[in-house]
Amino acid sequence: MAYHVLEMDKDEAQALAQAILDAKEKVGYCSVCFNLTDCDPCQVCQAEGRDRTVICVVEDPRDVEAMERTREYRGLYHVLHGALSPLDGVGPDQLRLAELLQRLRQGDVREVIMATNPNVEGEATAMYIARLLKPLGVKVTRIAHGLPVGGDLEYADEVTLAKALENRREL
Amino acid sequence: MAYHVLEMDKDEAQALAQAILDAKEKVGYCSVCFNLTDCDPCQVCQAEGRDRTVICVVEDPRDVEAMERTREYRGLYHVLHGALSPLDGVGPDQLRLAELLQRLRQGDVREVIMATNPNVEGEATAMYIARLLKPLGVKVTRIAHGLPVGGDLEYADEVTLAKALENRREL
Repeated sequence: MAYHVLEMDKDEAQALAQAILDAKEKVGYCSVCFNLTDCDPCQVCQAEGRDRTVICVVEDPRDVEAMERTREYRGLYHVLHGALSPLDGVGPDQLRLAELLQRLRQGDVREVIMATNPNVEGEATAMYIARLLKPLGVKVTRIAHGLPVGGDLEYADEVTLAKALENRREL
Repeated sequence: MAYHVLEMDKDEAQALAQAILDAKEKVGYCSVCFNLTDCDPCQVCQAEGRDRTVICVVEDPRDVEAMERTREYRGLYHVLHGALSPLDGVGPDQLRLAELLQRLRQGDVREVIMATNPNVEGEATAMYIARLLKPLGVKVTRIAHGLPVGGDLEYADEVTLAKALENRREL
């Protein structure tokens, strides 16, 4: 990047510098879902035509991007900004859990989809939140584990294959 | 491999040559499940303590190995030796389908798990066989699609993520 900057026109360099300042100044967290946004509430939270009865809980704003790329999901999001990891000193208080509970208490939400990462921390977080939300009577679901589409059985790791077998569905 | 052979002792080279001949001569297909075996029926088909009411249908003997590595599956197998692929000239007659139907007609089997690869040919084969087996009244299931364990939401491809979302389960 340093070489690229040195080869820029002065105008370009100024525009880049300004863009960086703008990004830092104008982009913040959405007060509803805590995704990154330049308007508050963010465009997803404001959008008409999205299903307000479903909230997809993710660890990171980048995961919202990944979910949006599927073009299949039409509900809202909630970004935790991390996952439970006692070894790294991340407990429930470091995540946006109180705000999630607050949103659910306002009613309307029918289902919470736990889309934390499919690793140890993500699983623990999903289980923890599922238990936390139980008293509220909201349906809590977890995205599926299994073989990635286009993959090959032979090269699947044992744990994934065991999960794919365990979670098989009737055809 | 050529260099490795040239650096071998003569005894080792003879042993390797003999092993290759033995492999070719002694290893064949199991007459029940069509997996590779040096005894007929193969060790899985013969084994006591395996669940004879479940058959896992795979494309290739290597897939049997992969399933065995999970140490979770205790049923029997059926190796198709391929997947439906009209472009490559592989139709139902090139697969071990008649033999599968024969096994199912002998009764006892409660469930057939379609563990063909999670790609276009594998899916088509699974759907085809599911329709073929419907009149027999056997339960046909498909291994799950979703995120591989230990992965990251951000790097999942769109189709896999959409599948993981679609196949979510209640916690």
